[in-house]
Amino acid sequence: MLLVADNIQITNSTIAHALSEMDPTPIQQLAKRCEAAGAQAVDINTGPLGRHPEEKMTFFVNTVQKVTDIPVLLDTANPQAMKAGLIANEKTAIINGFSLQPEKIKDILPLAKEFDTDIVGYLLNHDGHVPHNAAERLSAAIEIYRHIQSIGIDSSRLIIDPIIVPLTWQNGTFQAAEVLTVIRQLSDVLGFPVRTIVGLSNLTSGLTSGKANMKKKILLERTYLSMLSAENLSMVLLNIFHAETIETARVCNILQGNNVFAWDEIP
Amino acid sequence: MLLVADNIQITNSTIAHALSEMDPTPIQQLAKRCEAAGAQAVDINTGPLGRHPEEKMTFFVNTVQKVTDIPVLLDTANPQAMKAGLIANEKTAIINGFSLQPEKIKDILPLAKEFDTDIVGYLLNHDGHVPHNAAERLSAAIEIYRHIQSIGIDSSRLIIDPIIVPLTWQNGTFQAAEVLTVIRQLSDVLGFPVRTIVGLSNLTSGLTSGKANMKKKILLERTYLSMLSAENLSMVLLNIFHAETIETARVCNILQGNNVFAWDEIP
Repeated sequence: MLLVADNIQITNSTIAHALSEMDPTPIQQLAKRCEAAGAQAVDINTGPLGRHPEEKMTFFVNTVQKVTDIPVLLDTANPQAMKAGLIANEKTAIINGFSLQPEKIKDILPLAKEFDTDIVGYLLNHDGHVPHNAAERLSAAIEIYRHIQSIGIDSSRLIIDPIIVPLTWQNGTFQAAEVLTVIRQLSDVLGFPVRTIVGLSNLTSGLTSGKANMKKKILLERTYLSMLSAENLSMVLLNIFHAETIETARVCNILQGNNVFAWDEIP
Repeated sequence: MLLVADNIQITNSTIAHALSEMDPTPIQQLAKRCEAAGAQAVDINTGPLGRHPEEKMTFFVNTVQKVTDIPVLLDTANPQAMKAGLIANEKTAIINGFSLQPEKIKDILPLAKEFDTDIVGYLLNHDGHVPHNAAERLSAAIEIYRHIQSIGIDSSRLIIDPIIVPLTWQNGTFQAAEVLTVIRQLSDVLGFPVRTIVGLSNLTSGLTSGKANMKKKILLERTYLSMLSAENLSMVLLNIFHAETIETARVCNILQGNNVFAWDEIP
């Protein structure tokens, strides 16, 4: 299970300010801290980038790749920004991502072929809404796979995101269990070993903060991550500074592996 | 996932002494503490009970059942003791358990039919050794199921224990992953929804103690328990006084459930 930091995002005011000022330092400091904390890839979540999308994304990718060699996930709904990021990329970039929404199929998906990159496919309905259960998600996965095939992208390029929803949703715990089912069944349904990714922070988003609640959030997060790991989740997008969650992820990798057990591996 | 306390065992010197003196008080105190800590059943591990097995087991079961109504798992390799425990039982007793070893099939298995109880089947080889991988375990499960059927015991009475081995074994982490695979595949292989149980404490047995190592043991234990829960483990035999592991088990149950999410449910 690869750890992908979700920390570099435009909702972080320091990052938003650095981007508007085109100041690389705060972004580079954060990128280096992410890698030091164990990130094996980093998500660059720029938001839609209404103004100067190409210029901003180019700056963002260049800035991050000057200080780290780990892969970057380009996380924007703006196809112009996405394309600019792929052009700017000098190491490994992953498109994050597309769904069955017609504009995504038309504008984002072809970029994976043009730039020969991995691409994340979100298991959302055609209207962009979250499916109600595992069956709807698996049905979306089959459609996504057909689009991948029809455009001539190799299936090994696909990474499926089954979409974790907040536990605070009315059917939040049901959806959490359904996501586990989807990851368990996905490779059988598609007929090849498909890679998977989830956005773990979404599980506890919307929960009130405060110290006591933070402890509960971490407990929910690390427990659910272990469950996802049992289903052989390939990559997890998460807050890389949640030390206890990262420690849990490392133990999951030990318990899933063929390595000889050694005390020193345990955090 | 039901929590079964593994704390009442003969290797506990207080319990060994109480049993030799036929003193109910220490046993009853421990049983009540187990229930208060969240145990939904309790394993009574008497060991082989070389001397006066019937008398000792009768005393043990009576003693425990006087202070708690939760089910008891009768955990002895001695068929005389097992039968005495089943005769003494006035609430719910579960036979823990039998394997493909000829003497178990002959002496233990028929007791489940005679007393109409649930019975745990260990996925061990015919010689009592631990299987090398998931395939050998699933093969043992099929044989165990055939024995259950041939003697006329309803399949709903069977609880399978795939056998967790210590991580310190040379192939310990491989075996940990294989046990997950077995639980994931078991119901498909047997063709009905079969219940499962594991002895979680075995995962970290043999690891050196001490405060720093205890923290690591708990981390391994709670992480692996979450992974087992993702595979829909039915029951877990564990040290009920490991508060962090119990807290994790509760969160697993929330994340596996259909209940509406509420902060108050989180420990």
